[in-house]
Amino acid sequence: MSVYEDSLKLHEENKGKIEVVSKVRVTCKEELSLAYSPGVAEPCRKISENKEDVYKYTSKGNLVAVITDGSAVLGLGNIGPEAALPVMEGKSILFKEFGGVDSIPLCLDTQDVDEIVRTCKLLAPGLGGINLEDISAPRCVEIETRLKEELDIPVFHDDQHGTAIVVVAGMINAYKFLGRDLADAKVVVCGAGAAGSSIIKMVRELGVADILALDVDGIIAREDASREYDFLTKELSEITNKDNVTGGLAEAVKGADIFIGVSAAGILKPEMVKTMNKDSVIFAMANPTPEIMPELALEAGAKIVGTGRSDYPNQVNNVLAFPGLFRGALDAGAKKITEEMKMAAAQGIAAILKEEELRADYIIPDAFDERVARVVADSVMKIAREQGICR
Amino acid sequence: MSVYEDSLKLHEENKGKIEVVSKVRVTCKEELSLAYSPGVAEPCRKISENKEDVYKYTSKGNLVAVITDGSAVLGLGNIGPEAALPVMEGKSILFKEFGGVDSIPLCLDTQDVDEIVRTCKLLAPGLGGINLEDISAPRCVEIETRLKEELDIPVFHDDQHGTAIVVVAGMINAYKFLGRDLADAKVVVCGAGAAGSSIIKMVRELGVADILALDVDGIIAREDASREYDFLTKELSEITNKDNVTGGLAEAVKGADIFIGVSAAGILKPEMVKTMNKDSVIFAMANPTPEIMPELALEAGAKIVGTGRSDYPNQVNNVLAFPGLFRGALDAGAKKITEEMKMAAAQGIAAILKEEELRADYIIPDAFDERVARVVADSVMKIAREQGICR
Repeated sequence: MSVYEDSLKLHEENKGKIEVVSKVRVTCKEELSLAYSPGVAEPCRKISENKEDVYKYTSKGNLVAVITDGSAVLGLGNIGPEAALPVMEGKSILFKEFGGVDSIPLCLDTQDVDEIVRTCKLLAPGLGGINLEDISAPRCVEIETRLKEELDIPVFHDDQHGTAIVVVAGMINAYKFLGRDLADAKVVVCGAGAAGSSIIKMVRELGVADILALDVDGIIAREDASREYDFLTKELSEITNKDNVTGGLAEAVKGADIFIGVSAAGILKPEMVKTMNKDSVIFAMANPTPEIMPELALEAGAKIVGTGRSDYPNQVNNVLAFPGLFRGALDAGAKKITEEMKMAAAQGIAAILKEEELRADYIIPDAFDERVARVVADSVMKIAREQGICR
Repeated sequence: MSVYEDSLKLHEENKGKIEVVSKVRVTCKEELSLAYSPGVAEPCRKISENKEDVYKYTSKGNLVAVITDGSAVLGLGNIGPEAALPVMEGKSILFKEFGGVDSIPLCLDTQDVDEIVRTCKLLAPGLGGINLEDISAPRCVEIETRLKEELDIPVFHDDQHGTAIVVVAGMINAYKFLGRDLADAKVVVCGAGAAGSSIIKMVRELGVADILALDVDGIIAREDASREYDFLTKELSEITNKDNVTGGLAEAVKGADIFIGVSAAGILKPEMVKTMNKDSVIFAMANPTPEIMPELALEAGAKIVGTGRSDYPNQVNNVLAFPGLFRGALDAGAKKITEEMKMAAAQGIAAILKEEELRADYIIPDAFDERVARVVADSVMKIAREQGICR
């Protein structure tokens, strides 16, 4: 049986993956009178007097909705809200298992940006946070940006920032291992959608000045009359490519130190890797087949290779990021997730591995490393409190 | 400590009452690859090929959202979505404990009918059913009616029909115990909001022809220029009060056989009960203080008295209805909840008590009678299948 057949069987036998259970007993009249009528009127009254008490007497403070419109699910594309549900349930159980965060999948029957934003806002009173998932770019960026402005609970689009946080952790440790300074790195980011744009922004925050971003049309340069840019491409054109060069991937990677791919299978050729600087670092995260297979990259001169795959070293798995990030944000009472909190999460993940533990094939902790979520949560909580953005 | 103080403590110590847990294990890479990426792509693909498979591979088929706008919470009124959350969480745990139904509370930050309807529709892809809760009348009737028309999952407003189902069960058993025929009964329903209107409609289906409905202005008669009717009052004016009488409660109950109160504390006076027919039946369900206390009603000549209270006999508790009703609807794959299914639930509840078990103070089974949910579910499932309204 393949992993696909096994997975299908698992889903059918269990009829999905999530279950909602009671934290309190209701087995007799006395218990019922406390958990429900008439006793329940008292927490209701308290909250109606002071709305903030909703965090004290309800599950809100630990409940994150995983919200999608099914427009960009895994590599399957726009398969709609019903077909997206197995992924969202998967996300929910990872939230619980890795971060102790209760989570409910909500699959919306609309792909209209205004309507998605409005629906999230209408649902917010009972939610401690919102994790946007598998919403296509550039819509996802607009939705997240608007919700962050308009809501006072953490909102996070994992497809954008989850991968970015982990790959940044990988970059930090790769350069620590290599004894180099990221300020001197030339970085190529191939793929300028949800994940790519967030990676580019975080890489800039790391102090990297020389970044080239590529989309399907090649290196993103300043806007000119020859092509139309959506708002995201326009933004990236302004914060990357300082020398305003043009060309394709071959031109971009020449003389580069780090390649980060969130694009398509096999597009980074060994001969391109050979034109990169010595001991290059490659994160080839196209799924399931990376931009270049690790063995080919290493053979062509790369020193460190990470992928999205669990069967190769240095897996860039966003389960390292989102459970701890939300755990920390919720525990801190953070009203939003800031750039600084994301960076703190990346640094937390990187710091799991002591300097002496680092190896070329071990710059990112294992997905099941039990230290990760706690360290990420603590890092995020600390910075959130310092920033004064908490309830 | 009072029940209110105890309840507050319970809610604070547990930080609310619900928790979302995984039904499958994700403790190693192999398990992760089945529950999540890459294996999860397979159930996604299957559902994208055949939308109906969402019931086969996800939790949708057992997941009911408890949706409110916080406009009519318990006896507390329009306290808003945050303050409503303790009640919704309570409802969710009752769904699970009594019916094995997974349930999530969703408290909406709008009281606009169109927006509530639209939001429910947008959420429907991931839901097996919708339980509307604590939405004020007459809006709740419009919302439920529209959702029933527009969605192909069961939609049920418990405040309307939950109480109605249980009180109808009580009427059936009361008349069985008294050896009388409901077709001959004169019934007075005091309170013409959400619950009252549903009770009136079910009582009509029982074959009762002589019904008077009262709201705060007295007996509802045919519309005339002297007062304005909302659509609900107008509807009730057309299906009750066959002789088009007018007056207040004292006039209404004179010569009546059954009084059903979903109104206000203490409004049914002993001297009014004395004017009712011999061995009258009284359901006084105002909470926490009934329209008349049971001891006063019995002293004034009533034969059978039910209330909403757990400390008196014949408690009309809607936990007897909604868990089994949804259990049956979900198990049958019903696309809606019909009048016939509600009546089957009432008859199921009534039938729990054998004729020889019936006593004046035992016409309604106990809320914790373990037989109830299963019998209700089976009754509902049977009729749903007969009606051909199932997937």
